[in-house]
Amino acid sequence: MSYATQKLVEEKVFKDPVHRYIHVRDQVIWDLINAKEFQRLRRIKQLGTSYLVFHGAEHSRFSHSLGVYEIVRRISDDVFHGRPEWDESERLTVLCAALLHDLGHGPFSHSFEKVFNVDHEEFTRAILTGDTEVNEILKKVSPEFPAHVAEVIAKTYANKQVISLISSQIDADRMDYLQRDAYYTGVSYGHFDMERILRVMRPLADQVVIKSSGMHAVEDYIMSRYQMYWQVYFHPVARSAEVILRKILQRAKELSESGYKFKQPPTHFLAFFDRSFTLADYLALDEGVLMTYFQLWMDERDPILADLCDRFVNRRLFQYVDFDPGKDYKKLGELASLFKKAGIDPEYYLIDDSTSDLPYDFYRPGEEEERLPIQLLMPNGDVKELSRLSQVVDAISGKRRTDYKLYFPAELLIDGQKKAIKQQILDMLREGGV
Amino acid sequence: MSYATQKLVEEKVFKDPVHRYIHVRDQVIWDLINAKEFQRLRRIKQLGTSYLVFHGAEHSRFSHSLGVYEIVRRISDDVFHGRPEWDESERLTVLCAALLHDLGHGPFSHSFEKVFNVDHEEFTRAILTGDTEVNEILKKVSPEFPAHVAEVIAKTYANKQVISLISSQIDADRMDYLQRDAYYTGVSYGHFDMERILRVMRPLADQVVIKSSGMHAVEDYIMSRYQMYWQVYFHPVARSAEVILRKILQRAKELSESGYKFKQPPTHFLAFFDRSFTLADYLALDEGVLMTYFQLWMDERDPILADLCDRFVNRRLFQYVDFDPGKDYKKLGELASLFKKAGIDPEYYLIDDSTSDLPYDFYRPGEEEERLPIQLLMPNGDVKELSRLSQVVDAISGKRRTDYKLYFPAELLIDGQKKAIKQQILDMLREGGV
Amino acid sequence: MSYATQKLVEEKVFKDPVHRYIHVRDQVIWDLINAKEFQRLRRIKQLGTSYLVFHGAEHSRFSHSLGVYEIVRRISDDVFHGRPEWDESERLTVLCAALLHDLGHGPFSHSFEKVFNVDHEEFTRAILTGDTEVNEILKKVSPEFPAHVAEVIAKTYANKQVISLISSQIDADRMDYLQRDAYYTGVSYGHFDMERILRVMRPLADQVVIKSSGMHAVEDYIMSRYQMYWQVYFHPVARSAEVILRKILQRAKELSESGYKFKQPPTHFLAFFDRSFTLADYLALDEGVLMTYFQLWMDERDPILADLCDRFVNRRLFQYVDFDPGKDYKKLGELASLFKKAGIDPEYYLIDDSTSDLPYDFYRPGEEEERLPIQLLMPNGDVKELSRLSQVVDAISGKRRTDYKLYFPAELLIDGQKKAIKQQILDMLREGGV
Amino acid sequence: MSYATQKLVEEKVFKDPVHRYIHVRDQVIWDLINAKEFQRLRRIKQLGTSYLVFHGAEHSRFSHSLGVYEIVRRISDDVFHGRPEWDESERLTVLCAALLHDLGHGPFSHSFEKVFNVDHEEFTRAILTGDTEVNEILKKVSPEFPAHVAEVIAKTYANKQVISLISSQIDADRMDYLQRDAYYTGVSYGHFDMERILRVMRPLADQVVIKSSGMHAVEDYIMSRYQMYWQVYFHPVARSAEVILRKILQRAKELSESGYKFKQPPTHFLAFFDRSFTLADYLALDEGVLMTYFQLWMDERDPILADLCDRFVNRRLFQYVDFDPGKDYKKLGELASLFKKAGIDPEYYLIDDSTSDLPYDFYRPGEEEERLPIQLLMPNGDVKELSRLSQVVDAISGKRRTDYKLYFPAELLIDGQKKAIKQQILDMLREGGV
Repeated sequence: MSYATQKLVEEKVFKDPVHRYIHVRDQVIWDLINAKEFQRLRRIKQLGTSYLVFHGAEHSRFSHSLGVYEIVRRISDDVFHGRPEWDESERLTVLCAALLHDLGHGPFSHSFEKVFNVDHEEFTRAILTGDTEVNEILKKVSPEFPAHVAEVIAKTYANKQVISLISSQIDADRMDYLQRDAYYTGVSYGHFDMERILRVMRPLADQVVIKSSGMHAVEDYIMSRYQMYWQVYFHPVARSAEVILRKILQRAKELSESGYKFKQPPTHFLAFFDRSFTLADYLALDEGVLMTYFQLWMDERDPILADLCDRFVNRRLFQYVDFDPGKDYKKLGELASLFKKAGIDPEYYLIDDSTSDLPYDFYRPGEEEERLPIQLLMPNGDVKELSRLSQVVDAISGKRRTDYKLYFPAELLIDGQKKAIKQQILDMLREGGV
Repeated sequence: MSYATQKLVEEKVFKDPVHRYIHVRDQVIWDLINAKEFQRLRRIKQLGTSYLVFHGAEHSRFSHSLGVYEIVRRISDDVFHGRPEWDESERLTVLCAALLHDLGHGPFSHSFEKVFNVDHEEFTRAILTGDTEVNEILKKVSPEFPAHVAEVIAKTYANKQVISLISSQIDADRMDYLQRDAYYTGVSYGHFDMERILRVMRPLADQVVIKSSGMHAVEDYIMSRYQMYWQVYFHPVARSAEVILRKILQRAKELSESGYKFKQPPTHFLAFFDRSFTLADYLALDEGVLMTYFQLWMDERDPILADLCDRFVNRRLFQYVDFDPGKDYKKLGELASLFKKAGIDPEYYLIDDSTSDLPYDFYRPGEEEERLPIQLLMPNGDVKELSRLSQVVDAISGKRRTDYKLYFPAELLIDGQKKAIKQQILDMLREGGV
Repeated sequence: MSYATQKLVEEKVFKDPVHRYIHVRDQVIWDLINAKEFQRLRRIKQLGTSYLVFHGAEHSRFSHSLGVYEIVRRISDDVFHGRPEWDESERLTVLCAALLHDLGHGPFSHSFEKVFNVDHEEFTRAILTGDTEVNEILKKVSPEFPAHVAEVIAKTYANKQVISLISSQIDADRMDYLQRDAYYTGVSYGHFDMERILRVMRPLADQVVIKSSGMHAVEDYIMSRYQMYWQVYFHPVARSAEVILRKILQRAKELSESGYKFKQPPTHFLAFFDRSFTLADYLALDEGVLMTYFQLWMDERDPILADLCDRFVNRRLFQYVDFDPGKDYKKLGELASLFKKAGIDPEYYLIDDSTSDLPYDFYRPGEEEERLPIQLLMPNGDVKELSRLSQVVDAISGKRRTDYKLYFPAELLIDGQKKAIKQQILDMLREGGV
Repeated sequence: MSYATQKLVEEKVFKDPVHRYIHVRDQVIWDLINAKEFQRLRRIKQLGTSYLVFHGAEHSRFSHSLGVYEIVRRISDDVFHGRPEWDESERLTVLCAALLHDLGHGPFSHSFEKVFNVDHEEFTRAILTGDTEVNEILKKVSPEFPAHVAEVIAKTYANKQVISLISSQIDADRMDYLQRDAYYTGVSYGHFDMERILRVMRPLADQVVIKSSGMHAVEDYIMSRYQMYWQVYFHPVARSAEVILRKILQRAKELSESGYKFKQPPTHFLAFFDRSFTLADYLALDEGVLMTYFQLWMDERDPILADLCDRFVNRRLFQYVDFDPGKDYKKLGELASLFKKAGIDPEYYLIDDSTSDLPYDFYRPGEEEERLPIQLLMPNGDVKELSRLSQVVDAISGKRRTDYKLYFPAELLIDGQKKAIKQQILDMLREGGV
């Protein structure tokens, strides 16, 4: 028997709060889960800084990755199995892609990638095809298998049906994270009838479609996404933590570049500061490592770095006001001037942030959105895009609604010197409607 | 208005998956939650190494502490409020004790305390009464308030009623962790009717009792504990990780004491190696910090330290066999000799572990057990200990059932040299019933 | 102490799957629950014929009525209590109105009311103010109390705030039935964060409003309604049973009027056939009584009555096709002619039914809708109607979407004689898109 | 293709709150569900009079029967499928037996059977093998198929493995009803990890066993049973209703036998009074029919029948005291005398009831218990009975704990004449500890 078809003597199960059990029967999958690059995902939180708002959201990308795998396994083994439009030979490829789709994520990905100009998708590809345990395992299936899995994740694979299981507007990734994030945060959104959606999924020539009888279940899923975005993912307080995190990394980089002498040298970061990093450098990072530095840096001489780290570690976050970049842009300039006069560096303490910065969208077919839209299979065999049939989805799709906030350290504006200027700042901020 | 009675302008709530919402109205509680020593609990997992078996169990002591607070708040404000046996002036003391009862826990407490001979309860007292933000806040209530809170947690407080809310066989601590650990692991044990138990709790002169009409709900709670212990807390694979962790710390200490020169100096540990640590040294530790060291130590020259760290970080755990310390003790000596002959240090690679080592018990009234037993209030006003009335509880109480396992690195016994000796070892282990 | 303020010695609780426990402390409420007119609600299903599609939906109006009471009790005692805009003296009135709002419902209300031209709201008033146990109890509070409770339910009460707790677009009635119907059917819709909605409800001068920070929770509630309507309440198969039920009652009435001699005389119905009924006649009816007649009538000589009863009792329902009353009206006439030619009475076997017939709407502010719209309370104190702020709600509100179906007995058109005509009928129906 | 192996064109599903979905693919199963004898189970409550205590418990035997079928289907198709010890040819037999095992239950079975000396198991056999729609369907599989299904249900079938799926101490019947009754009552007992139990079930030569690794899950299931029995099934208030029900039927029979002239003749009961009933007479009964009579009989001239019916219909139940048949037997005689003196017929108003009367047991291997005990499959292939390995189960098994109550109408003893005697009665009852 080839490695690709090798089964475990006895099925292994993982207890999972969302799917009850995760079932593993393939030796390949079992080996991948035990690879160190996959185990590393235990050290990276699924929701980044959201645990500072929703204290239950301490779950990792490891759990989510198992969940995505399980959903795809069920679609493949229970729903698609035996259907003529489904190519059974793609099964292992899609299971591996599901399991490994987030493999390149680093600690607090969003901010880290922004400051150091890196991309987790490139790292995913690098781990799949580079010198790693994961690559060793995939190569045992066939020499070209690592590349195939990477292509599915990169959405360049020839078989679009396979891609759409992993990344479309209603893929296994989203179905897992909505339910999982809802479970761990404890919010009552995020529930939808996944059983029903799985039952009405159908493989077609080059895509996966949903039988139109399941339209209401899909509407419910879309609304769950919508609610989760506004209630959880875009939460302004989690974004406050994200803003501070970004500024910490930016400050450390700037200090390093300017020749600042750290009491605690930023060993793990150096290769990122000067862009000489290797894959091994990247894999050495995780959220525990970053937090360890931040705690050490609370004792740095640079007051900005020390203060920002204290804020992040001890959750002394920035406050915020709504901000209209069209109307308030001039005001932002004035505020920056006043901050300087008050002795507070606006580069680090007056930050505008918008949800467009976040890599999310609830449902937007077309243009820049790279995920495939949801197609409904009508009783007569036609295929129609969801928002053409659903009033509800049409109402919220395509309309990018950006939420702008201006973040600042409220306590610094109350205490101490230069009261008059600080009062002026506070007045301006309040006008904006704190 | 005094600080002790000061209320927030608007009640704050935390979304919690177990209790739906955690409600905070007291300024003191709000300030304590924001103290850095309390925020630090976010960086310490509630279930230590259990997440390596139950991947969902990534929740922190922060969440649990809020949960215990919420249960006590409900008992105090909803159930006991207005009852003549309940002294309203104890309310804030018991709320603070509930919130802060785990404050002294360190990273992977159980192993850390064992190796370095420290005690998290002493650290809790030190944080409450030492130079900390928490102490600053408590002192604002009254000069003796920090000591009172510490006494409740240490079970030396004069009012036993207050103690039994926090530490008895059916206290808020246990009621929260059973439900919370069940929720995050996803197991179906751990459920019981807390609503009903809360409704039938009654304050008496010097204890808290349960109306006998609630006996079946309490039985169900006891059985939940029993199940959680055997299914989750005593899980042999989590104990395997715990064993490795303990051996890492022991090895690092030993190396340090023997003058070994670390490539990555164990700065954070030094004060613990030579027992010169301060409270600040202790508070600088968390699980991210320890994991950061373990990852660095994977590159140490000492092969034992490097190997053990790789095992813990990448989840390459020891296997185990059942082990009867009475019958198999001689065998253990023989095995140790064979390990030495095979070139594997038995001190680090042949470890017997028993659940008696674990700081847990499902229900044992009396002797060494320090938690107060469960007392039922009969309709005629008598008070009777639970196991005298419940056959089920009687069946499992008092009978300490210890589970012994012998842990070892199975792969090392298969690969490589000295095959004959290794085969002899494997044969001996198998007899024990692998 | 007056009867109005009399409390039970010990609080009584009812175990409830939706709200965990229903709490009763007022003697008046306890007495009302034990009144025979209230106990009668146990014999009337909350969802009429829906149990023939969702087998779990066998719950009664009794459960729902307790649930509505519990929600209002929580709003009154936990949220509104102590707020200056809330008049504590209205508490008992609104609790009674909540508990009793459905008291006049009869068996399979919708169809029964249609055929016999009666109105459950009039019966509710009659029970509250007539010669009943409920009236006896209410009168003990004060002579005018029964009328006050009736006015709240009839929405004619002076205090509009009180009315809007019981009947608005987001009242306790709807919040209970959505959750309860979802629970018993087992569908995954119907969930929303009621805890949060209750927390943000505020009494204003003459209405109840929702703090705008809770808008997303309200959106989620509206979407739950939308989903429940299309997935559960408008389910075409349940409507098929409803259509048959209506035709049974219509046939029995017609036979009675035409002097038909029943083998089993329709004793309970006679007063409704000739509109001489009293309140006692109405209260003697329930769904068990109706079903008993239907089972007896399966043996009647009239083939239409016997057949329709067999269909309802043994769940041999009509099939259906979509139907466009604008386009297909002429076709309906032709079909009726063909049915007659085929020997099948179209009056009883070819029935068009639309969801507009159903007394439901998901969210439609204004005109004919009598329920008060949802008002959001802005941070600046303004009040704005929900659909002006929520894109999602705006998308689905006001647009009455009617679903038309044409029901018919498919098997009768296949078997037996006159095959050619029947084939012609089937062809016409299929065009319409079976 | 034979009828036995005929599949539906598309799988049908029923939404079920307990198992999410019930899946039907076999034409035989689909036809059986639509048979009128099976549809009749919708009109018989699963928990008899328990809804008068747990208002949510209004679910029918129809739902439960579908649930048992679904569990057996999963065992057969997912767990046993492909195992050499499992005879695939038994699949349809066991599915039908699962679906139909409760087919002979009548309205309020327990009391009805007692008074009229009938047995629902005989009716089940009669329906399966008599002139019914169900029999027509089963015969289409093969002439002997109805008898085989009946034998499985009667536990006389040759293949004991098949029997133990349907009736053992851990069969599909019990697994469904525990979860379902817990769900509908809303109690927090009744939960156990069925997924895990199903995973560790194994077919052996002539039984079904559980892998010993699943012992704790089985313990949890046994404890769930234990809790459900004492909290729900043996609830003294539900038994009060049951006692009244029994006395209504007894009184009606007695009156009929004594030539009493009913205003509303008990047509449906006559054949049971004189034991001339046919299967058709039995199938004509359901709980709606009985309730219809009870409501009519509230107007009968016989004061006992009228009063008892009023009590049952309007939930005016008897009160109760604990009663020790050993110690209090003489007292019972004295009480009966006093009742007579007070003008209250003790035959109908002073009733002792014990839980031994109820057809239940939580776990008792051996003797009179007809259900097969739970056998654990050890790693070495041995089979051991559960209570030999589990302390917890041993503690509660075999020890029949009977709960005795004495029921009486409290209000009749307070009001009216003969106060002295009544007071004497009340004093005697109170001694017993009301």
